Amino acid sequence: MKMVTVEQAEKIVLAQIKDYGTEQMYFENALGRVLAEDVKADRDLPPYDRVTMDGIAIQFESFEKGNYSFKIIGTQAAGDTPIEITNFDECVEIMTGAALPSTTDTVIRYEDLNIKDGIATVTINTVTKNQSIHFRGRDKKQNEVVVKANQVVSPVIIQMTAAVGKDKLLVKKLPKVVIISSGDELIKVNETPTPYQIRKSNNYTIKAALQQYRINAEMIHIPDDAEITRKEIEKCLQQYDVIILSGGVSEGKFDYIPKALETCGVEKLFHKVQQRPGKPFWFGKHNNGVLVYAFPGNPVSTFMCLHRYFLLWLEQSLNIVKEPMYAQLNKDFVFNPALQYFLQVQLTINNNGTLLATPVEGNGSGDFANLLGTDAFMELPLEQNKFTKGEVYRIWQFSLASKW
Amino acid sequence: MKMVTVEQAEKIVLAQIKDYGTEQMYFENALGRVLAEDVKADRDLPPYDRVTMDGIAIQFESFEKGNYSFKIIGTQAAGDTPIEITNFDECVEIMTGAALPSTTDTVIRYEDLNIKDGIATVTINTVTKNQSIHFRGRDKKQNEVVVKANQVVSPVIIQMTAAVGKDKLLVKKLPKVVIISSGDELIKVNETPTPYQIRKSNNYTIKAALQQYRINAEMIHIPDDAEITRKEIEKCLQQYDVIILSGGVSEGKFDYIPKALETCGVEKLFHKVQQRPGKPFWFGKHNNGVLVYAFPGNPVSTFMCLHRYFLLWLEQSLNIVKEPMYAQLNKDFVFNPALQYFLQVQLTINNNGTLLATPVEGNGSGDFANLLGTDAFMELPLEQNKFTKGEVYRIWQFSLASKW
Repeated sequence: MKMVTVEQAEKIVLAQIKDYGTEQMYFENALGRVLAEDVKADRDLPPYDRVTMDGIAIQFESFEKGNYSFKIIGTQAAGDTPIEITNFDECVEIMTGAALPSTTDTVIRYEDLNIKDGIATVTINTVTKNQSIHFRGRDKKQNEVVVKANQVVSPVIIQMTAAVGKDKLLVKKLPKVVIISSGDELIKVNETPTPYQIRKSNNYTIKAALQQYRINAEMIHIPDDAEITRKEIEKCLQQYDVIILSGGVSEGKFDYIPKALETCGVEKLFHKVQQRPGKPFWFGKHNNGVLVYAFPGNPVSTFMCLHRYFLLWLEQSLNIVKEPMYAQLNKDFVFNPALQYFLQVQLTINNNGTLLATPVEGNGSGDFANLLGTDAFMELPLEQNKFTKGEVYRIWQFSLASKW
Repeated sequence: MKMVTVEQAEKIVLAQIKDYGTEQMYFENALGRVLAEDVKADRDLPPYDRVTMDGIAIQFESFEKGNYSFKIIGTQAAGDTPIEITNFDECVEIMTGAALPSTTDTVIRYEDLNIKDGIATVTINTVTKNQSIHFRGRDKKQNEVVVKANQVVSPVIIQMTAAVGKDKLLVKKLPKVVIISSGDELIKVNETPTPYQIRKSNNYTIKAALQQYRINAEMIHIPDDAEITRKEIEKCLQQYDVIILSGGVSEGKFDYIPKALETCGVEKLFHKVQQRPGKPFWFGKHNNGVLVYAFPGNPVSTFMCLHRYFLLWLEQSLNIVKEPMYAQLNKDFVFNPALQYFLQVQLTINNNGTLLATPVEGNGSGDFANLLGTDAFMELPLEQNKFTKGEVYRIWQFSLASKW
């Protein structure tokens, strides 16, 4: 099988988007999950003609006819049943949030009143009919959709859900994901490495990035042993929806993983993408539907493939609609190999409101210290070798980056 | 006390930034928290001369002198102790991630080799000395800072932390926050309102927005009763670092909160800001250090004040450094009142890489349905009334918005 392009790889990956179903949950716990139903208004919004200033409610016609003084017949707070006036020169002292009495149509705020001995006198000359009232149904009508399905539940969506009395929400189920690290050179974080060992770390990055989507991925480690590798993969194929592997997919003698995947019946959909970093990326599918993302072990490669392929697949599987993000290259850049290059960039916004991407090159795909100073990958087109300052290309902002 | 400007209000709020100390936690749990210490490399990074391709390790001088065939004297995987050659025509079959033997200096990948009967023959003419090696200490030196303090812990930081063997991280402690809703017109989410009641919802939005910072705020509700209000506020002043109130701070007869705050010894630092929405915003401080953010009850007002003041204060208290975000106004806009206007906008990126902010006006500060279709507030300068398409202003992107 020959190397695929990034475009082909994306197409193959996105052909495998899958609906994992829905589940109900208490609305407060749904933050960050994907809404799987439309939320409708249970009543008009606002549900009544809502007073928006503290002051008095009057009939405008009375003021228009020259009446500036109104007898206060009662005080109505938010939540109270409206107090009705029976006379043109009467008014109701009324609070923000209260329901406008049907016998009144205009509210005058305290700042424009003089109140003495139960009489409110208007101290301004201009009053507009219907002022300081947020009329019933002005924002939304009863049964109108207020929150559309297929959005990540945000604080504002939580608010709207509370307001319409929907304390349970239908959300998309999340795929069960396992992250497998492999290689005898990898030790645990709290262990002391020999001069030739390193600590496991890719698995933690992947797990952390998935937390943004509320996925709690499992992590397992397998040693460089053909039989154990096969058994563990066999087990994972029964228990998870997605297997993410990091490392063990290049041509090395001790890379048991591609063979184990094959033995377990995982069909290779591609191996190697015409890109840097992340060329040895392997992607496959078991006939029971389990997907296998086997990323190259270099940290920058894993991180790039995670964003460019897995998270894209995940978002589309969950029906999350995101727009592609673009930025202006802020410095000339040359890349000669016949590979699509994912350039690490720092993002800034200039005083024109334009997103600028400044290249920050590291020492290759093993240099994850370099990632720390950057915010995104800029995807440079394969057909070009020279990229000029001012040109606009797609960027892939890092998961949970909090630049602004 | 007269109304303050937005600029003055910001100054007063930021004069109250406070350090809540630090605490240690297991590194994996620190995602989203603020790192309070520099993380240093425990060893050089990479810790050894790291092979970056599967293939053979040779002495370049041998190839340079015309030798194309090398006898494989052993196979070295990642994690293995290096195998040393003793002769110019020898090589070590070597895997990605392995430590380069000190007797070799160049790696040739499988793709450029022909291996037969234990002899590897190079099939290309150009080999560069030191190729396919990521040299020790190239990225970072031992004891060099790899992650600086005062950053939100991201997946990449988690990775770096794991790599240098730091399984406990010192992070900033979070302030204890209570969110108080008030007003007899407010009922619970699962209750059925009378025609003049509405459900509590602001408190949930605030709580959800704080979750982004890993703060689990408490929520309490107090009825419209002067004595209960006083008692509850008294209690909260003993138990929390910050009290956020939503509603009950306008001039209304039933707004017991400003009085209760005063009685409890909370000093008013300002009341009313020259802004829309959110004019009645009240901010104060108890002499025990507790801060009180009393937001106006209209949902859009609460949401704006939360982003513009509280979250800004919180980020600075936690030492989170964020850059201001700017966008181009995408449509002419007029706003005449002598107030600083926070315009609700939708964000897009044009094909020039420029952030465009398109105004989406709702029906005032009670219309929170409108917030759902927007991504940010654009802060329009007080001194101006006309704002022209193409002008660039600061924006405040909504918490947990996932536009791109």
